[in-house]
Amino acid sequence: MTAFHLSRLPIVQAPMAGSQGADLAIAVCRAGGLGSIPAAMLAPDALRAEIAKIRAATDAPFNVNFFAHRAPAPSAEDERRWRAALGGYYREFGIDPATIPAGPGRAPFDETLCAIVEETRPPVVSFHFGLPDDALVARVKQAGAKVWSSATTVAEARWLEERGVDAIIAQGREAGGHRGMFLCDDIEAQPGLFALLPQVVDAVRVPVIAAGGVADGRGVAAALALGAGAAQIGTAYLLTPQATTAPLHRAALRAARDDATRLTNVYTGRPARGLLTRLMREQGPMSANAPAFPLATGAVAPLRAAAEKSGSCDFSPVWSGEAGALAREEDAGALTLRFWDEARRVTGGLRLE
Amino acid sequence: MTAFHLSRLPIVQAPMAGSQGADLAIAVCRAGGLGSIPAAMLAPDALRAEIAKIRAATDAPFNVNFFAHRAPAPSAEDERRWRAALGGYYREFGIDPATIPAGPGRAPFDETLCAIVEETRPPVVSFHFGLPDDALVARVKQAGAKVWSSATTVAEARWLEERGVDAIIAQGREAGGHRGMFLCDDIEAQPGLFALLPQVVDAVRVPVIAAGGVADGRGVAAALALGAGAAQIGTAYLLTPQATTAPLHRAALRAARDDATRLTNVYTGRPARGLLTRLMREQGPMSANAPAFPLATGAVAPLRAAAEKSGSCDFSPVWSGEAGALAREEDAGALTLRFWDEARRVTGGLRLE
Repeated sequence: MTAFHLSRLPIVQAPMAGSQGADLAIAVCRAGGLGSIPAAMLAPDALRAEIAKIRAATDAPFNVNFFAHRAPAPSAEDERRWRAALGGYYREFGIDPATIPAGPGRAPFDETLCAIVEETRPPVVSFHFGLPDDALVARVKQAGAKVWSSATTVAEARWLEERGVDAIIAQGREAGGHRGMFLCDDIEAQPGLFALLPQVVDAVRVPVIAAGGVADGRGVAAALALGAGAAQIGTAYLLTPQATTAPLHRAALRAARDDATRLTNVYTGRPARGLLTRLMREQGPMSANAPAFPLATGAVAPLRAAAEKSGSCDFSPVWSGEAGALAREEDAGALTLRFWDEARRVTGGLRLE
Repeated sequence: MTAFHLSRLPIVQAPMAGSQGADLAIAVCRAGGLGSIPAAMLAPDALRAEIAKIRAATDAPFNVNFFAHRAPAPSAEDERRWRAALGGYYREFGIDPATIPAGPGRAPFDETLCAIVEETRPPVVSFHFGLPDDALVARVKQAGAKVWSSATTVAEARWLEERGVDAIIAQGREAGGHRGMFLCDDIEAQPGLFALLPQVVDAVRVPVIAAGGVADGRGVAAALALGAGAAQIGTAYLLTPQATTAPLHRAALRAARDDATRLTNVYTGRPARGLLTRLMREQGPMSANAPAFPLATGAVAPLRAAAEKSGSCDFSPVWSGEAGALAREEDAGALTLRFWDEARRVTGGLRLE
């Protein structure tokens, strides 16, 4: 039926750093989908613990996701400009900018993380923002993992296939969180999934996983109709009890509308989709002042902490795809099974004569 | 199977002002789809002639599409600013701006056009940019036409349903040509079809037609899976012999890539999707200098004419959706049948177990 032979169902739970760990992945794996552990914000020992947890809970295959950006050299001038742009907020919250530590941000895949892959041997390793160096990719494959990465354009899909990935995640512009874009930096050139998916399927021979705006069984069926081997679903899992989505994030998602998200770089320095917040509205949503990924995060962190303390998301990244309104408060395993039942029902109901 | 009972196949040929007339609509109607005649750039007698032509060629139902914007009051200051922005090009081409007539642009639906509807009684009348005044909508319905309009957000879909439309075209951000947006002017808030379509389907009771990035039978099947009653296809018809697509436009489409379009207002004053051109690159793609729709057109017209004379699209609107690369040089009737055969094959092949 599909080109997807890893998990029982062609449903991949999208890795969502900061909003989930092994618990969500385990529930999805047990239901027959492919669960993912986001590694980008985990220290090495925490990552080891998450992988051990999923291994202990299920024999099903799972995915560990890493960011493959190149860590930028910090620039004092860029940091100064960013903090100047945020100066009014520091005064508003009574924060002394001199006390803000340089943010650690997200760690790219490196020797240390590769060694953890070799030690823990996850069945799938997926990357965002391209791929790490060829030598590291080779070591991941040598460790027995299937290697996946995201493409936001046909050119990126071809680039990934040439470098030997086992599957490509076609990430439509609808997707929540960070855009995987790595050959292009113009968000206006990023196609929606309906246009992107069939063009990627036509351009490469490896299986393609559809991501972006897929939030229920209708979306799964549509993704398969457009040629995907599987569908990746993220935002729709954020309200499940197994996700670690913060209460303020959950509240915002419950009120989400189709037109309420924007692509923004003000939280990390790279374009990512989230529900519109005060910081996005006033500084962007795209800002030329934001330093390179992931260095924008540090200067925003104390504002976020202060605002959240008074129950406000004004300075928080509230990641969501464009179908956030379809997220349901439901057990992640039951949700996974419901996605599949619905996909089957939709497909069976399409008697085209 | 679908909520669509007008034409034999749930495939609507999108109206594409400037690139097609009755010939394309006739070919699609004869194949079982629903053909459309774009009226926005036709004088009243030319519109009557197009409708007479389709009536003479087929008994099948068809659609006549009108723009429902409010004509703006021309502003000398806006026109001056726009011509100043284009000044370098006038010098480059040796054009005296004083000789440029104020452009007529596109006519909104009005008394005159409504009288033509009453006289010719098309089975479907679709609107872009919202709806005309209630009294005109009532007259169109009284004339026996089904009334459709485009929604680019759930809020617009609800607004249209409240005003009694018979079907809603959910226009994803991928779509070529003008965005139908009328309650919102932020292109960054416009969802892609994968996210928009199921949310519109959930929000309204009238049938929903999916538009934007649908360019083959896979797209038709996916649109139906997401809950649409029919799929509207535009760009994929632009290379058919029945379209009147200009040779330069055809050549550009043959080289189209998934990441080559942008939303731009420099050609008409309203956001519309087309292949990236020099004018878009240098003045926009979105420009604060462009006057209100449709007044931006006049000042660009002589530049377009001069550039096209030397075989260049630099100043031409080269409308295309994000799936322009899927357009095929094929008879429009055969293409329509192929879309349907492919949709059936794709759907039949989805044995989800």
